[in-house]
Amino acid sequence: MMDSIIKTLRQAIGDEAILEAADIAERATSYWDSAPMRGKALALPRNTDEVATVLQTCHAAGQSVVTQGGLTNAVTAAKPNDDDVILSLEKMNRVIEIDAIGSLAVVEAGAVLQNVQDVVDEAGLRFPLDLGARGSCTIGGNIATNAGGINVLRYGMIRDLVLGLEAVLADGTVLSSMNRMLKNNAGYDLKQLFIGTEGTLGVVTRAVVRLFPRPSTRHTAFVALDDFEHVQALLVLLREQLADSLSAFEILWQDYYRFVTTVGGHRAPLSPEHPFYVVFESEGNDAALDEQRFTHVLTTAFDNGLIDDAVIPKSDNERNAIWEIRENFESILECDPVYLYDVSLPVGEMATYVDTIKGNIKARWPNGECYTMGHVADGNLHPFVCPNEPVDGKAISDALVYEPLRAIGGSVSAEHGIGMDKKDWLDQSRSDAEVALMRTLKSTLDPQGILNPGQVL
Amino acid sequence: MMDSIIKTLRQAIGDEAILEAADIAERATSYWDSAPMRGKALALPRNTDEVATVLQTCHAAGQSVVTQGGLTNAVTAAKPNDDDVILSLEKMNRVIEIDAIGSLAVVEAGAVLQNVQDVVDEAGLRFPLDLGARGSCTIGGNIATNAGGINVLRYGMIRDLVLGLEAVLADGTVLSSMNRMLKNNAGYDLKQLFIGTEGTLGVVTRAVVRLFPRPSTRHTAFVALDDFEHVQALLVLLREQLADSLSAFEILWQDYYRFVTTVGGHRAPLSPEHPFYVVFESEGNDAALDEQRFTHVLTTAFDNGLIDDAVIPKSDNERNAIWEIRENFESILECDPVYLYDVSLPVGEMATYVDTIKGNIKARWPNGECYTMGHVADGNLHPFVCPNEPVDGKAISDALVYEPLRAIGGSVSAEHGIGMDKKDWLDQSRSDAEVALMRTLKSTLDPQGILNPGQVL
Repeated sequence: MMDSIIKTLRQAIGDEAILEAADIAERATSYWDSAPMRGKALALPRNTDEVATVLQTCHAAGQSVVTQGGLTNAVTAAKPNDDDVILSLEKMNRVIEIDAIGSLAVVEAGAVLQNVQDVVDEAGLRFPLDLGARGSCTIGGNIATNAGGINVLRYGMIRDLVLGLEAVLADGTVLSSMNRMLKNNAGYDLKQLFIGTEGTLGVVTRAVVRLFPRPSTRHTAFVALDDFEHVQALLVLLREQLADSLSAFEILWQDYYRFVTTVGGHRAPLSPEHPFYVVFESEGNDAALDEQRFTHVLTTAFDNGLIDDAVIPKSDNERNAIWEIRENFESILECDPVYLYDVSLPVGEMATYVDTIKGNIKARWPNGECYTMGHVADGNLHPFVCPNEPVDGKAISDALVYEPLRAIGGSVSAEHGIGMDKKDWLDQSRSDAEVALMRTLKSTLDPQGILNPGQVL
Repeated sequence: MMDSIIKTLRQAIGDEAILEAADIAERATSYWDSAPMRGKALALPRNTDEVATVLQTCHAAGQSVVTQGGLTNAVTAAKPNDDDVILSLEKMNRVIEIDAIGSLAVVEAGAVLQNVQDVVDEAGLRFPLDLGARGSCTIGGNIATNAGGINVLRYGMIRDLVLGLEAVLADGTVLSSMNRMLKNNAGYDLKQLFIGTEGTLGVVTRAVVRLFPRPSTRHTAFVALDDFEHVQALLVLLREQLADSLSAFEILWQDYYRFVTTVGGHRAPLSPEHPFYVVFESEGNDAALDEQRFTHVLTTAFDNGLIDDAVIPKSDNERNAIWEIRENFESILECDPVYLYDVSLPVGEMATYVDTIKGNIKARWPNGECYTMGHVADGNLHPFVCPNEPVDGKAISDALVYEPLRAIGGSVSAEHGIGMDKKDWLDQSRSDAEVALMRTLKSTLDPQGILNPGQVL
């Protein structure tokens, strides 16, 4: 059967669009795993019809299919086995249309996020989804994982940015829901089935996404705070005063800040003595008023004793250097082993939660560390656990980080998804009835289980 | 079997929680239809367990169930027959919790929207969903129909405001997804199955909804414009300059404005000679800066020739009088017959579309009129068709209004839903593959078809 599938696929969409094992092995498994990629065949469809043909062929043969975007996901969500057909959307990477009046773009799933951002920017508008992996991740992957990132506070996750989409079902049926309106209540909103379901219910091929005015002003502050109550109070103040022009509010715990500004080599713009650091930004389109407003709120925060110290970048270079502290954590990833997490929890529980897991880690691994940063306003933290001893400690670390979420209604995945890595923990964040309904949806939409088998459920 | 169901329900949740036909008939069918309500029994559960019991009982007996909220929907979506059990959530009307730090409220499905708004306001926060039916409609109904309203531009439809929800499936299974975080990608986002599906896949019983800072400033303008290009350009300008503080941008066509300020008796703050009128608002929390910003953008709009005339209300009374022009269209509803629509379409197509349907109506009914207003920024218009002759013209009017949407990718329902009224037109806005998948979901989640039978599909 193996040869027959490859042969059928070659006939269906062309020899040049099908790679076999030897060629596949020249690719890395993912951003996180440089081992040679494995797979029976890798299909490179050029349009939706070819995606449909590949899925129809595989469905008829009961052949498993692993769909791939930019391979940056952090939960082993697109890792094929020798027996899988890989479906890569990399040839479907166009920004098809930008509609300024309708404030939308039509894009192919394989388009790289940064490319979409750039093309939209050239048209004088803004596509606000933004995350560290922007240079590699694709819109299709962003949609399949309901990507979040640094602008969720203002613009929501990508679920809120998708007006319409096209997906191909497991049996090759093309489901086109390319709605262009902000409002459309004509029947069930089927696109939701494909957003955040990690490619297990269908393959996203195109999307209509919302665009926004491109802000012309951007004000950034990097501030130090002495306790978590102040972090919360600062967030409340900024939300009130800056309203929705507040576009980012990112927290760094002291240990994270110290590590990336010492071992990590980033210049430290503030003394490392403070328990918490926050970088926040506002955006707008009125140079004079926006600056006045930003300065006013910063002054108020000082006057109210919320902030202990602050740095305001005076140039794009200085701003980028601050963002590097938050976004460039390569130095932490060099710890061996290191486990990166993506949890969400009520904001009011964050300080206690981080103290708890740090305590747990120290109790287990005396030299262990837990470096934490994240998106406070979204309830989303990213702890990095470094045992600092040569252990195969992932399962232990998972338990130390995830168990304390149970009592406070937290989630084991804020934005990264479940993939293969977090399957064992899904039932901590979701009830039996919920998991049962997920399984029902999966078996209804993909009765043979050919799409991304072994993922999520 | 009829008696047996009533008896079983009485035993299960108490005599006082079950009304029978005579008592049911004392209620009006809906806000739009004063005929006595019909139904076999009306259940008034006091909590989720009782909802589950009612559904379990009805499921076991193959008994149809029509779920009711505030009965304000405009698409005949909650109208029972003599054979239906009615499930009213009116006893489940509490605001259970307001969490200021988490910026969320936990509410029961039967809570009346205005009551939720008021309770949240007393807590110093804001629940931004707002629509004309606020005094009667319920959160459960808002969720089931994915309600929009006048603040969608800034805050989105209720889909964007629901963090978590609890629903009871057709067989009585309680599905609790009461997530409190902005981000939670742990598995499929099941709540989407119950938002905008008009009670056909489950009954919403509770929800966690997002709250926002309560703005302390509000600036309103009522302006006249000479062509639709200017309406679009004004929207672009306001979006750029006011960013997300722009909270409303509502359009009135001249014929709508003339009718409600003459027959309708509203005072006309601007001369009725202009083709278009727009009411727009911004909200913020800085009295001095917000006023400066608003005045500045209004001046720019004048200087750029976008606006021909403007009125700025000087008091809450004046502001309310302007909003009455937009929201109080009782005088149009007194036309007999009158057909109210809720379409969405690309903004760039609006002017031509409205001209087209007005032409169609005049061609069919020489004295006929089409009064149009709506939410431009959301792509959503509400035309009112008055044949001005004694005809049973709904089917004809539907065709005149809906047919022209086909070529421009519009939707027959922007926010009201499909209900029973628009079923025949669903396939105009959605493809065969989409409708087939909706049917698959319906038969998977409600295999006996007991929930709101005959609605949507």
